[in-house]
Amino acid sequence: MLPDFAFFDAIAEAAAAETLPRFRMQTAVDNKQAAGFDPVTEADREAERAIRQIITAHYPDHGILGEEHGDVGLDRDYVWVIDPIDGTRAFISGLPVWGTLVGLYHKGRAVMGMMDQPFTGERFIAEPGNAVIRRHGEIAPMRTRTGVGLEQAIMMTTSPFIFPEALRSPYHRLESTVKLARYGCDCYAYAMVASGNIDLVVESDLKPYDVGGLIPLVEQAGGVMTTWDGGRPERGGNIVAAGSATLHAAALEMLNRSG
Amino acid sequence: MLPDFAFFDAIAEAAAAETLPRFRMQTAVDNKQAAGFDPVTEADREAERAIRQIITAHYPDHGILGEEHGDVGLDRDYVWVIDPIDGTRAFISGLPVWGTLVGLYHKGRAVMGMMDQPFTGERFIAEPGNAVIRRHGEIAPMRTRTGVGLEQAIMMTTSPFIFPEALRSPYHRLESTVKLARYGCDCYAYAMVASGNIDLVVESDLKPYDVGGLIPLVEQAGGVMTTWDGGRPERGGNIVAAGSATLHAAALEMLNRSG
Repeated sequence: MLPDFAFFDAIAEAAAAETLPRFRMQTAVDNKQAAGFDPVTEADREAERAIRQIITAHYPDHGILGEEHGDVGLDRDYVWVIDPIDGTRAFISGLPVWGTLVGLYHKGRAVMGMMDQPFTGERFIAEPGNAVIRRHGEIAPMRTRTGVGLEQAIMMTTSPFIFPEALRSPYHRLESTVKLARYGCDCYAYAMVASGNIDLVVESDLKPYDVGGLIPLVEQAGGVMTTWDGGRPERGGNIVAAGSATLHAAALEMLNRSG
Repeated sequence: MLPDFAFFDAIAEAAAAETLPRFRMQTAVDNKQAAGFDPVTEADREAERAIRQIITAHYPDHGILGEEHGDVGLDRDYVWVIDPIDGTRAFISGLPVWGTLVGLYHKGRAVMGMMDQPFTGERFIAEPGNAVIRRHGEIAPMRTRTGVGLEQAIMMTTSPFIFPEALRSPYHRLESTVKLARYGCDCYAYAMVASGNIDLVVESDLKPYDVGGLIPLVEQAGGVMTTWDGGRPERGGNIVAAGSATLHAAALEMLNRSG
């Protein structure tokens, strides 16, 4: 049996108790990679620890895949996929577009997911057949926007510079077709697709914990999320999320067109 | 005599009554420019109308420079500079990083300013000798971050593609020097400099209403904001805002270096 939303609420609140007091507090930033910029804050580590504690106490037989503290039992039927702070660059810049991502996989398929943004008070959450936004005690169903063609679409990506050489020209073809492209939103972009504010997210080289909590949001709200070659997105990689199957097909066609 | 913060509160609340109910509501988007993408929503027009009503009722002898409804009395001693929704692209994408900007100029100099973000509940506001952040009834002094060199700096700009040909190479020299560059934040970026979360904003070709409400935030919080050639920023143009005089000088030196 799947957990209820209240279990995700408990997770979100435990994570927020670690992240929010450290937001805009110039916390120490580690560099995981010697080259490049990959900040991991104390908030990241402590939030994941708090999330794991709750999961392990209630579901000791479930596996856990996390960004900060390693993986446990990835071959089990149920696996939790955790990114305590997706958008650490936003976090250290003071921007309220980071989020706490928690997904639940069953036999490799993402079945429940949550993106929590404790500064704005938004909680995007989905289970099979049900996707909602909650804020300040209010709850609203979440639906993607449909009937939007590529030329009318609003697209987001982390940065136009994230794409490896081979994907750059397909990406730019798509960017020059859509109505508006915006950069720098990480998980918030997927929540905006799920809630019908934008239409498309295109990214490359994502990890499972970047997408695990987001797949159910997009899918249960009526959207489609796959790899660039149309495969399931649970393991990350190059990812396309769209508000409708039609728009998703059009984006994939353009990304995979030769020449 | 300058108005008090309560007068700015009244302006912010009147504007929020027009913007917030239309945020994430797929309002009709006009295109002001035939080419390119310059959305102006109903919220934009109605918020400016509401702001002008308050100003005109209390200060009929002041001038007004606004984005939506034309200019009045720009030669008067006091001129209000209004951008009802700075960051319209963020607004139509559902991102809470747009803001209502209101500045008060005295003889061409920005002396008071406000950036209000009604979705997050943040109000950044400054008068001579005083800069504060207010949220949910709490008030905190606002100070920039100092002691940060270019190599440690977090920088924001609207997009790496906004710069005209001649400014592109200086901009990229700077971007490749700083620790982290982020895109797409408009007014929110200046509020993050003023509040000490980031260090640098670099943009080009801004209008007076893009900067009027922001100059006092940056200056009264301890930062420096000028054009790329070091001139006063009140009339817009190419703009650099920095958390400290030292960082500002280093950024200007790099932007203006020949070759």
